[in-house]
Amino acid sequence: MINIAIIGYGNLGRGVEQAIKQQTDMTLVGVFTRRDPQTIQTEGAPAFTLEEALKRKNEIDVCILCGGSATDLPEQTPAFTAHFNTVDSFDTHAEIPNHFKRVDEIAQANGTVSVISSGWDPGLFSLNRLYAQAILPQGETQTFWGKGVSQGHSDALRRIEGISDATQYTIPNEDIIARLRNGEKLELTTRDKHLRQCFIVLTEGADAEGITETIKTMPNYFADYDTEVTIISQEELNLHHKGMPHGGTVLHTGVTNGSTKQVIEYRLALEHNAEFTASVLVAYARAAARLSSEGHQGAYTVFDIAPKYLSAASVESLRKELL
Amino acid sequence: MINIAIIGYGNLGRGVEQAIKQQTDMTLVGVFTRRDPQTIQTEGAPAFTLEEALKRKNEIDVCILCGGSATDLPEQTPAFTAHFNTVDSFDTHAEIPNHFKRVDEIAQANGTVSVISSGWDPGLFSLNRLYAQAILPQGETQTFWGKGVSQGHSDALRRIEGISDATQYTIPNEDIIARLRNGEKLELTTRDKHLRQCFIVLTEGADAEGITETIKTMPNYFADYDTEVTIISQEELNLHHKGMPHGGTVLHTGVTNGSTKQVIEYRLALEHNAEFTASVLVAYARAAARLSSEGHQGAYTVFDIAPKYLSAASVESLRKELL
Repeated sequence: MINIAIIGYGNLGRGVEQAIKQQTDMTLVGVFTRRDPQTIQTEGAPAFTLEEALKRKNEIDVCILCGGSATDLPEQTPAFTAHFNTVDSFDTHAEIPNHFKRVDEIAQANGTVSVISSGWDPGLFSLNRLYAQAILPQGETQTFWGKGVSQGHSDALRRIEGISDATQYTIPNEDIIARLRNGEKLELTTRDKHLRQCFIVLTEGADAEGITETIKTMPNYFADYDTEVTIISQEELNLHHKGMPHGGTVLHTGVTNGSTKQVIEYRLALEHNAEFTASVLVAYARAAARLSSEGHQGAYTVFDIAPKYLSAASVESLRKELL
Repeated sequence: MINIAIIGYGNLGRGVEQAIKQQTDMTLVGVFTRRDPQTIQTEGAPAFTLEEALKRKNEIDVCILCGGSATDLPEQTPAFTAHFNTVDSFDTHAEIPNHFKRVDEIAQANGTVSVISSGWDPGLFSLNRLYAQAILPQGETQTFWGKGVSQGHSDALRRIEGISDATQYTIPNEDIIARLRNGEKLELTTRDKHLRQCFIVLTEGADAEGITETIKTMPNYFADYDTEVTIISQEELNLHHKGMPHGGTVLHTGVTNGSTKQVIEYRLALEHNAEFTASVLVAYARAAARLSSEGHQGAYTVFDIAPKYLSAASVESLRKELL
């Protein structure tokens, strides 16, 4: 059995707790949190303080780090990798090379394995970009996201004065996807690929027209997109827009022999983003445990890990059943 | 540079010759054939006898074996792996474990690397079945093939008396795919998943009705499917049905947290089956060369090979650009 510790218990940590229940070769040691463990309502797992993890070092094979990329993981991944095999979902794209370097040095020095930037993007989408481009180097890869809730954009809406609550959906342009699939060559702008749909709840007396204009012209977040704004009640937002759907498409349109069209497409349709991301982290936790038990050490990404390490099945059975 | 030899020059060998032209880190040593090399029309590559390969052993890093699974590869893969790193597309499913074992023994004994059963199914589809099931163990995976030409079924048609030429398309049931995508639980029969479309050319005086009945009731090939038979002229067959389109879908419908639907889909739409398969073999030839140069030996499948080995780019650049 592989003994897992969950570090941080937000949406992602909860998803990991659920995902481990589906795995036959894993046990959950517990949830380790910055908060008072007494206040944590888990789905059965014992809760401990963060400090308690080190005391239970011998009981833990892999720590799954469930904090955020902005402030938690840049500190937690190096700190935990000094003592444990770790898996994180670090997704601040521009910082990945630095994060990898820092974590690799610590893992090498301490004989641990750390799988960084796991999940679906970065993660499964990255894998599909790599496989597609390696196989069809003469081609174009486009990634589309959604339909899904963007937490960052929803947060940006909530910071606008006069908005009390909001949900933002990123919507891929399916017409463009269909045209690429058919082999059309397109020069795509940001506006062509996605549109942004905002459902907002206003505070009393707020200026609906002014706020709509503020949203549509907001640099970085909305100005470069076609943006739809819909004003709804808090009740309606609660009823229909508090889910976490997401997903997307990696579409690679390549050619062989000069002009023969070959299309590779990978698509995720997720009812719950965090639960799915958690399921990916759990599979890579298995890989971390196995790599470590084989005597490997250092930082890894999804690119460095042979697929067999993710599966609970033996490689003989994989060859027989899945090849 | 990685120096490649093509062993066998049918559709697949031709595809490999084209695919290598797209790779910046590979050179083609030549085409090695059982036929008289003088009679081989390549797209520029020199042609040699099979025996010549051994004499040029020092010039060759990887042999890509382009023969068929029925009789060529069971002999050629072991024979060539005794002297060279090799890649094959062995696809006789029930024989894969034996083929692996035989090739592994020879590769281990001779210090070579052999990647067997590469291509898209087995190959990329296998990878996607593995990733999906490892991540969402509570779920169902279905593989659909087509729309595409089945050589085996086309050959079976041509063996029927009264048929002078034929093309058979395997067509996936897109309605079923759409229902699975939406999370429906379905018990599927062979007939539900695919239909078979036959375009046949009759010899003069052949009994159209009798032949149609013979096709539709042919065990193993057509009896378990809804089969459409269309009689056309040789000219029309030549004009519209001599291509090699293929593709398909691996659809995994899983759940997290009891009932949250999560769908993973991988789809290939290929204008030319052999050229695409060849492109996959070429990427795995790169992996074979690298594994060998790192001192590894033995038989490998797509499950055993970390994605980074397929790409010409450095792992630093992959982390920066594709993760």
